[in-house]
Amino acid sequence: MSQEAELSHVRERIDAIDHQLMDLIAERAACARQVALIKSKAGDHQFYRPEREAQILRRIKAENPGPLDDEEMTRLFREIMSACLALEQPLAVAYLGPAGTFTQTAALKHFGHSVSTVPLGTIPEIFREVEAGSVHFGVVPVENSTEGVVSHTLDTFMTSPLFICGEVCVRIHHHLLSLESSLASIHSVYSHQQSLAQCRGWLDQNLPHAERVPVASNAEAARMVAERPGTAAVASDAAAEIYGLGLVATRIEDEPDNTTRFLIIGRADAPISGHDKTSLLLACRNEAGGLHAMLTPLADHKISMTRIESRPSRRGVWDYVFFVDIIGHRENPAVAAALDHLRRETLFLKVLGSYPEAVL
Amino acid sequence: MSQEAELSHVRERIDAIDHQLMDLIAERAACARQVALIKSKAGDHQFYRPEREAQILRRIKAENPGPLDDEEMTRLFREIMSACLALEQPLAVAYLGPAGTFTQTAALKHFGHSVSTVPLGTIPEIFREVEAGSVHFGVVPVENSTEGVVSHTLDTFMTSPLFICGEVCVRIHHHLLSLESSLASIHSVYSHQQSLAQCRGWLDQNLPHAERVPVASNAEAARMVAERPGTAAVASDAAAEIYGLGLVATRIEDEPDNTTRFLIIGRADAPISGHDKTSLLLACRNEAGGLHAMLTPLADHKISMTRIESRPSRRGVWDYVFFVDIIGHRENPAVAAALDHLRRETLFLKVLGSYPEAVL
Repeated sequence: MSQEAELSHVRERIDAIDHQLMDLIAERAACARQVALIKSKAGDHQFYRPEREAQILRRIKAENPGPLDDEEMTRLFREIMSACLALEQPLAVAYLGPAGTFTQTAALKHFGHSVSTVPLGTIPEIFREVEAGSVHFGVVPVENSTEGVVSHTLDTFMTSPLFICGEVCVRIHHHLLSLESSLASIHSVYSHQQSLAQCRGWLDQNLPHAERVPVASNAEAARMVAERPGTAAVASDAAAEIYGLGLVATRIEDEPDNTTRFLIIGRADAPISGHDKTSLLLACRNEAGGLHAMLTPLADHKISMTRIESRPSRRGVWDYVFFVDIIGHRENPAVAAALDHLRRETLFLKVLGSYPEAVL
Repeated sequence: MSQEAELSHVRERIDAIDHQLMDLIAERAACARQVALIKSKAGDHQFYRPEREAQILRRIKAENPGPLDDEEMTRLFREIMSACLALEQPLAVAYLGPAGTFTQTAALKHFGHSVSTVPLGTIPEIFREVEAGSVHFGVVPVENSTEGVVSHTLDTFMTSPLFICGEVCVRIHHHLLSLESSLASIHSVYSHQQSLAQCRGWLDQNLPHAERVPVASNAEAARMVAERPGTAAVASDAAAEIYGLGLVATRIEDEPDNTTRFLIIGRADAPISGHDKTSLLLACRNEAGGLHAMLTPLADHKISMTRIESRPSRRGVWDYVFFVDIIGHRENPAVAAALDHLRRETLFLKVLGSYPEAVL
């Protein structure tokens, strides 16, 4: 066959595939409409089902035959589900802005592009808007991330009636930004402590003699560097643009799978999806062995802990509170038993929510 | 059937659809790989085909059975094509930043989310990076848009060897941003002239006594308003976030289909897609009737003009140059004949490119 004949043969097949794809997507949207109708009749107007979406994405990931990688394939299904849902219930999602931050990326990765997203300036504002019902969900970074989050998300949970109903992980890339065009001219590197740490290997190798200066946020580092010849910042490409800096080197993070975790907050948590996490807020007696005693119920019930972080409580009663993530849903019998037990061992226990583990 | 039985029936159908969708998407990606292989063998390494993508999207739009609207359905296909192409040829696209602007929206709408996008600060920089080959394409606003573009895109074409290889239209929403929470407290409204004009009806109705102050850009308006109680800006929600302003009213544009046009620039223009435009740069004799004489060949060959704009030439030789968009591809016989004719009537004619009309 000639090249042209070969090409047109394959293209005809693509056209046929596209036709089938369109019909299937249309039928899927019609099914989503049917689901909404059945639920509405029963008085249920909550059409977004995080646990069902997680199950679908997990299956897609498990059965993906290639050649597209899992990330791309699940992304396409996220978008298809997003479009089908928007037809029945257009979602509004607030995130920690401004636009162009990793938190926006997280919001769109989790909800797809058919939702309307609202950038807000602070984490408490996001909590307020979700509480007030003016948006359906909020997306917030878990940690004092490299984007210079001032208010700690977990602190806000201490006084909020909201729940965690999802988590999402985003791959983070760091770049070296400067007014200089060569590494030889750079004597100091500014960034958030965490970002400097994430690029230590690269910095040791490529800028061994440059001073490393930790500052409040990566954006702040970029702003400072824009006024200081001979310096560089570790930050995102968005910051390069905003502050008029060049990219001296790209993707300098040591760990290529450098990801950051974000939480989805809502007015309810999620039903069981089969692979879930539960986040807890605990306070224990301020005495030797208090933390150990507190964690015994988890060990006894063979519950895995994926994360623990202590925070000053900001209330007079306890010195410290702990944020703990465990594997399993709070309605799972072993988890429920462990939580009952834990409740007796702690001064204070609040379940912040059970939700599907991030699929990718 | 009980509600639960009904639901699980529909959900089983959705699961079956998803399985078929996944297999078809995978097969489509495999076909794209085959196309790339056939082309590579023939020494052709240009896998992105704007005219073919436009044809596919046009067919999708024409045959979309609903219930998803055309915009959503074509968006999903854009993403599927984007993922398939990225497998063979990951595209880099520069756009007029920063992140969060309408130009970024345009870039992602046109290329899908599987490309890597690079925000740059000025239009000449985007031209330079495309010329240098460090990115495959650039996305630039056509007009001195509401985002405060300083350098006029069309001026840059006068001295550039690049071509226009696509256009994309983006729906633009304007909001009223202020430190105030009620309309009654607002005595002045700042914005770019064009945005004030686009919201005139709403402003007449809701703020009849407020002074309207045209400024350089919508972002600049938001910045000024953040320092001036009693004022408001017409700008995007991204600007509200960046400058810490509240949204007093949303989507206040008079025309709900308020769209702005962006151009895709590359090192070559696009082959015939069947529904194409051609952009021209012309200079005519500076005499009475010069413009009329210049346009006669178009009329004679029944070529429709969709846009004409005069610009100071910045070269001593001519007083004015004209940017003209016509319907049809330069290889279309009638267009080719008109261009031949036109070339004889003008002092200077440059074809900036033929490219598929924006599908949506």
